[in-house]
Amino acid sequence: MPVVLRTTLGPKTYFPNISRISFEGPGSDNPLAFRYYDENRVVAGKTLREHFKFAVCWWHTLGGTGADPFGAPTKDFAWLRASDPLQLAREKMDAGFEFITKLGIPYYCFHDFDLVAEADTLAESRRRLDAISDYALEKQAESGVRVLWGTANLFSHPRYMNGAMTNPDFAVVAHAAAQVKNALDITLKLGGEHYVFWGGREGYCSLLNTDMKRELDHAARFLHAAKDYARANGFKGHFFIEPKPMEPSKHQYDFDAATSIKFLREYGLDRDFKLNLEFNHATLALHTMQHEMQVAADAGMLGSLDANRGDYQNGWDTDQFPMNLYELTEAMLVLLQAGGLQGGGINFDAKTRRNSTDPADLFYAHIGGMDAFTRALIAAADILEKSDYTRLRRERYASFDSGNGRAFEQGQLSLEALATLAAQQGEPEQRSGKQELFEQFLNRYL
Amino acid sequence: MPVVLRTTLGPKTYFPNISRISFEGPGSDNPLAFRYYDENRVVAGKTLREHFKFAVCWWHTLGGTGADPFGAPTKDFAWLRASDPLQLAREKMDAGFEFITKLGIPYYCFHDFDLVAEADTLAESRRRLDAISDYALEKQAESGVRVLWGTANLFSHPRYMNGAMTNPDFAVVAHAAAQVKNALDITLKLGGEHYVFWGGREGYCSLLNTDMKRELDHAARFLHAAKDYARANGFKGHFFIEPKPMEPSKHQYDFDAATSIKFLREYGLDRDFKLNLEFNHATLALHTMQHEMQVAADAGMLGSLDANRGDYQNGWDTDQFPMNLYELTEAMLVLLQAGGLQGGGINFDAKTRRNSTDPADLFYAHIGGMDAFTRALIAAADILEKSDYTRLRRERYASFDSGNGRAFEQGQLSLEALATLAAQQGEPEQRSGKQELFEQFLNRYL
Amino acid sequence: MPVVLRTTLGPKTYFPNISRISFEGPGSDNPLAFRYYDENRVVAGKTLREHFKFAVCWWHTLGGTGADPFGAPTKDFAWLRASDPLQLAREKMDAGFEFITKLGIPYYCFHDFDLVAEADTLAESRRRLDAISDYALEKQAESGVRVLWGTANLFSHPRYMNGAMTNPDFAVVAHAAAQVKNALDITLKLGGEHYVFWGGREGYCSLLNTDMKRELDHAARFLHAAKDYARANGFKGHFFIEPKPMEPSKHQYDFDAATSIKFLREYGLDRDFKLNLEFNHATLALHTMQHEMQVAADAGMLGSLDANRGDYQNGWDTDQFPMNLYELTEAMLVLLQAGGLQGGGINFDAKTRRNSTDPADLFYAHIGGMDAFTRALIAAADILEKSDYTRLRRERYASFDSGNGRAFEQGQLSLEALATLAAQQGEPEQRSGKQELFEQFLNRYL
Amino acid sequence: MPVVLRTTLGPKTYFPNISRISFEGPGSDNPLAFRYYDENRVVAGKTLREHFKFAVCWWHTLGGTGADPFGAPTKDFAWLRASDPLQLAREKMDAGFEFITKLGIPYYCFHDFDLVAEADTLAESRRRLDAISDYALEKQAESGVRVLWGTANLFSHPRYMNGAMTNPDFAVVAHAAAQVKNALDITLKLGGEHYVFWGGREGYCSLLNTDMKRELDHAARFLHAAKDYARANGFKGHFFIEPKPMEPSKHQYDFDAATSIKFLREYGLDRDFKLNLEFNHATLALHTMQHEMQVAADAGMLGSLDANRGDYQNGWDTDQFPMNLYELTEAMLVLLQAGGLQGGGINFDAKTRRNSTDPADLFYAHIGGMDAFTRALIAAADILEKSDYTRLRRERYASFDSGNGRAFEQGQLSLEALATLAAQQGEPEQRSGKQELFEQFLNRYL
Repeated sequence: MPVVLRTTLGPKTYFPNISRISFEGPGSDNPLAFRYYDENRVVAGKTLREHFKFAVCWWHTLGGTGADPFGAPTKDFAWLRASDPLQLAREKMDAGFEFITKLGIPYYCFHDFDLVAEADTLAESRRRLDAISDYALEKQAESGVRVLWGTANLFSHPRYMNGAMTNPDFAVVAHAAAQVKNALDITLKLGGEHYVFWGGREGYCSLLNTDMKRELDHAARFLHAAKDYARANGFKGHFFIEPKPMEPSKHQYDFDAATSIKFLREYGLDRDFKLNLEFNHATLALHTMQHEMQVAADAGMLGSLDANRGDYQNGWDTDQFPMNLYELTEAMLVLLQAGGLQGGGINFDAKTRRNSTDPADLFYAHIGGMDAFTRALIAAADILEKSDYTRLRRERYASFDSGNGRAFEQGQLSLEALATLAAQQGEPEQRSGKQELFEQFLNRYL
Repeated sequence: MPVVLRTTLGPKTYFPNISRISFEGPGSDNPLAFRYYDENRVVAGKTLREHFKFAVCWWHTLGGTGADPFGAPTKDFAWLRASDPLQLAREKMDAGFEFITKLGIPYYCFHDFDLVAEADTLAESRRRLDAISDYALEKQAESGVRVLWGTANLFSHPRYMNGAMTNPDFAVVAHAAAQVKNALDITLKLGGEHYVFWGGREGYCSLLNTDMKRELDHAARFLHAAKDYARANGFKGHFFIEPKPMEPSKHQYDFDAATSIKFLREYGLDRDFKLNLEFNHATLALHTMQHEMQVAADAGMLGSLDANRGDYQNGWDTDQFPMNLYELTEAMLVLLQAGGLQGGGINFDAKTRRNSTDPADLFYAHIGGMDAFTRALIAAADILEKSDYTRLRRERYASFDSGNGRAFEQGQLSLEALATLAAQQGEPEQRSGKQELFEQFLNRYL
Repeated sequence: MPVVLRTTLGPKTYFPNISRISFEGPGSDNPLAFRYYDENRVVAGKTLREHFKFAVCWWHTLGGTGADPFGAPTKDFAWLRASDPLQLAREKMDAGFEFITKLGIPYYCFHDFDLVAEADTLAESRRRLDAISDYALEKQAESGVRVLWGTANLFSHPRYMNGAMTNPDFAVVAHAAAQVKNALDITLKLGGEHYVFWGGREGYCSLLNTDMKRELDHAARFLHAAKDYARANGFKGHFFIEPKPMEPSKHQYDFDAATSIKFLREYGLDRDFKLNLEFNHATLALHTMQHEMQVAADAGMLGSLDANRGDYQNGWDTDQFPMNLYELTEAMLVLLQAGGLQGGGINFDAKTRRNSTDPADLFYAHIGGMDAFTRALIAAADILEKSDYTRLRRERYASFDSGNGRAFEQGQLSLEALATLAAQQGEPEQRSGKQELFEQFLNRYL
Repeated sequence: MPVVLRTTLGPKTYFPNISRISFEGPGSDNPLAFRYYDENRVVAGKTLREHFKFAVCWWHTLGGTGADPFGAPTKDFAWLRASDPLQLAREKMDAGFEFITKLGIPYYCFHDFDLVAEADTLAESRRRLDAISDYALEKQAESGVRVLWGTANLFSHPRYMNGAMTNPDFAVVAHAAAQVKNALDITLKLGGEHYVFWGGREGYCSLLNTDMKRELDHAARFLHAAKDYARANGFKGHFFIEPKPMEPSKHQYDFDAATSIKFLREYGLDRDFKLNLEFNHATLALHTMQHEMQVAADAGMLGSLDANRGDYQNGWDTDQFPMNLYELTEAMLVLLQAGGLQGGGINFDAKTRRNSTDPADLFYAHIGGMDAFTRALIAAADILEKSDYTRLRRERYASFDSGNGRAFEQGQLSLEALATLAAQQGEPEQRSGKQELFEQFLNRYL
């Protein structure tokens, strides 16, 4: 039965001119309405709500004020003005729940210090987290909104400049552990379904001063300790690693899906950990999102997605809102064929441009993204259900479905046996890969 | 005891104006002399000959005639003019042994059809390979030159346009198996120390028409069959996988060292296979060569190297001759610290520019590369032996050498225990990574 | 009045299973029909035929047989089998006119040696060109097909390995001049509307051995000579320069639109030359096609387009068929606002993938491209005519339409005057760039 | 006669453990000594001091505290702690002059608000600039240090989020003009030799919301107004444009040298403006620094250099300290052959890594950079003076030095005349470009 979110306002209203966003259909010109996203619509056997589990990202959406390496913040958000850290945190949460419920998004995701500013000591930071999570519980109860995943920010504070889990100094590793313990406690308290590790500072700028092996050993020790603690305290969700190839480091250890899976398996972490894949990170690694998703799905690790898009020609994480229907449809093709995500959802890890400073811009961007995902999912379902796509692809591999091909696939043919068959068969016939025809299925159903 | 190569000419002389290249020392202006490479010089406890095991690459050096996607061959090599394929192959081999012995390079590497042109049938191709390998054995005996590794060209022929081991058509897979069987036989016959797989067409141009999982399963079946055959026939060397991220495919399955190691372990191939790493492939994958070498070394898989350099701004495999002392010195730092290569050597997988059409250009290029490797090895040894480099790097990790850091490294501290330590210790002290100082060690010893 | 092309077959039929491609509308599932392209449809006041002037490219479509740096040709085209060069050329032309008229494409484009293979001497090459152009005139008359532009291939032959117009050797420059003279003669004879220069080998691989200034001076001398000759012989069309940043050279002199315009103006060539812009070249230069088109349009040099698309992550010219509706719609927005192309058209400088080996693949690819351009043009027209796009963009600059802003735009305000105004006005109000809203116009009309 | 800088300390000493850096020669292991840089050494006829005119960059060296898009500042510089803006500015200046004179660097460069923090109003900002420039004059007089160039920061403040000179809102353009007027006044007052414009926000993130032509018209109006004002007030130096292709914008208008020269000429600014070229900007534009320098030199616009280096694989401006002797030697080859810079010098637009947090790291980095430039200049001079380099390169073009080649170069041969010569001469001889030999000159003299 569909959960209906209740629009949840705080003492102040932060988006007074914007009311609940409704579905108006493809013909609508209203930029503050959904043209495609209707959470109860059923596509390929499930509602959109079940497919997507959209989440708002506290980091970018409520805390991203537009600073870049060449400029100061541009966005003077009304919910970031209080001088008292906890008062600011509550107002930020009010704005967040107003925003999320006006959009009808069922989940949110957070770093520990997205919820409330870090304090000078671990103890005081913990007190702040305890207080703001009490308030979050109230807002969650009132609205029906839930936590998709929590995480700890192990990259912004200067102490992590040489890494957190992989810092050459044990004192920093211990500090990171304390921070993760708190973040796990808060995630559990708020009913967070999963927990994410993004290794922004786990990597290196120069191999000259780095002992990579020792650092990776430490990371594995750390992750085991975190996992054991969470499990002992009743955490049932998945842990997610979020691959990214570079930035801020020259080289990050979790370069891509394959590298991360190799690491998790090498250190015996692969039963508890899956991947949280991001579009922009996939393209920065010279892959495509569909490639990363397929690698993860084939390893049983397609956990969750961070939705955004990069600029292929600006070699850093631009985190633009998703609107490219090609990228999204190819991703949804993998998602549908993989049977969906393993527990996770789709978090908008995206930011409006630095010069998109109107409050409405946040709405345009999320609406555009939700509509784009919807359109892509429908197109992917159509391609799989209505077109020749599946048949054509399956037929390419038909020679392995029976006979010698099947025997080979089952490991029953030696190199000599294969060579004998080759000598008998003569030169193989040429078979076109028909890529242009396959590509036309995309434009046919967009 | 040093092996002295005998200059080995055939019926015709192909480089009549060039005599044996000798070592003249750093002060020499002679572009046809070594300024640094002296094979018997001892650096860090081994001769240069032992460190490097340089090899000439039949593919580029004798067969690379300068065609590119926009132009025809430019190099009218005198050894490629005979109309009879076997006569051409013998003249090519004469030229090769003249070249290699005039340079004093102890090894060569080949694809099957670098040795002699492929014929119309497997049987005829095999007959040609048998004949030319008889001739190669004579030349090897006369000269003292050896085979570092052999391989099969599974990418040039049109039949492999959709892959070889991973082709969607079983008939092509079987053909590839027959070809690999022959290549293994020839490698064994010639005393080849190792055997390489480079998956130029194992990958995809579009995931739309590709079943990645099924293709990788087939690749593993294929590699097991090849390995089992070779072992049964007495092959004692290593098998090497050569990672490359892209080109000719959009996405190649052996993207980088980490991806290849993941694959080898996943399918139980990691005991017999190691990696053959290439500089230009490393940088195309957005890594550095030292990174790839370190990843391989930490997995016990630093097998062999393909020496060249890429252009960081032209996103394809330019395969230029190595001359960048920074890239090489950082690579040699990893090599020395890893205790050298696991059986392999350094193959010049490099080509002179398309417009470098003089026979002497081939000599300038190889001499330049051998001198550059030598200078880099000496610099790396100096950095490790004479400078503060090793001490400074070790000190960065000293907190893990004893006490709580050591207990953590050994897995004896839980997350709670770490958090307790963090609460006690207060904010960690800041420790500079001193990257600019580390970098100056390079310029100090170049 | 629309020109109806006559389906024009030669003695043999090369695409016997494919008949004239017809328009069946968006609901059609037939991959051998147009879903959008209907040449007489009027969009934004002109027929599609007038907007696009589509052209088939002899180079790729009839001559591109699938070789790449790692592999041999894969496409055994039936029209490339004759042993006599002129017979082959005639059969190729038969196939070309069959293809082009079955698709209903009104133009073609060629390099001199796309029409007939180059001979050993200039004189014999000229005789071949004379003969094949006689045949082409017949085919053109029969079919109604016309020549959009001709050009000379100054990059494939080994003699051009160091450049053609910019070769350090005057003998090569002179040879290139003879070849261009012939190509101009043939273009004139065939009624070619324009003439293109693409400087594939005009550039350098290393600045170390290059005198850039002297080479560019020579290029300008050459272009003046070519222009003067053509004008003296009655050529009324435009000359087009085709920018590309790299490949085959490390650095090509015609890097991008701005660089090419600078060169043309510097040497007084800007009255006769305009630009032929290519999508894949634009993205290789880190620009977008719409950027390059806008730069050209603002200089009055938006001459003609080469239609294709690149892979943003494979840093070479992949020349894939255009199918990305975002790239195309943004390009069509510039085209419509610029009032169309200055004389040129849209040439499919694109190739089917190396493993797309069925004759039908050529049809799928061109149909897909023509439909994609059509859909993009319609979307662009809708955005300009039906949406708030134009108004919103104009309003961003409204402060320059009157008052002090207008005075500034007209050059009437000194720095002091501006500073005085600034002191009076106080801090400017913040105005959002609303990029996400602008982007939604694309998805609204696709 | 050499100017000897006086070590100039303020009330506090900021680098107490570091004394004046002296030249100790190549054998020194002291990381706080010069191994190559000796300002009075004569190379190629001029002292190093005259060749280089090194400058310290206030922006990075004194103000770069290590923030990045994922993290807070890491460097708690002692000179940035005062609460009063002018007191902070004076302490920063004390630290700067201590640093610069201990290194023996003769110049510095600044943005207006590097000198003192921007205030809330233009008037108050001006008062602060007046005050701090009085103090700077005292420090300059005491030390002998001079200003290489000044500039205005038109990119950090939120008001410039949509551009400064090219902002769609006239009010912002006027504000920028007021700021530039102040910056010009201060530069004149401090005896600044030149004035720079870097267009960090002049460009666009999306062409969809941008009128490029109108924005560039405005930029030209602005630059004319600034130039006229400065000239009227006695400024005799050059104005420099600093090209950069992207970041922070998706596309910056001053993409590279060629684009900037095109713009300056188009709007009649080329007599007063030259280029300030940066290594990292050159490589981000897919060029090399030597290419950009050659383009500028050939246009008479090689004004000044920003010294740093980028990471070729991290697609943003890493601004690392220069230490790559290949990049620098190729740059110095152009510089020497061009007869030096046109008035400018070499500004260290480079920052120590975010985790290089020791005060000494700033010294290591600058010393390493100065030594690297010195070594590169010596190598370049050796290549030009001692090797065959110049002769070999000149001989490549010898066919244009006389006869028909010379006639062509002088514009005396028509296309027909060239064609006639080509017919007579037959196929040109092949001439190797000898790139590998040219490259060996670098390793020979490093």
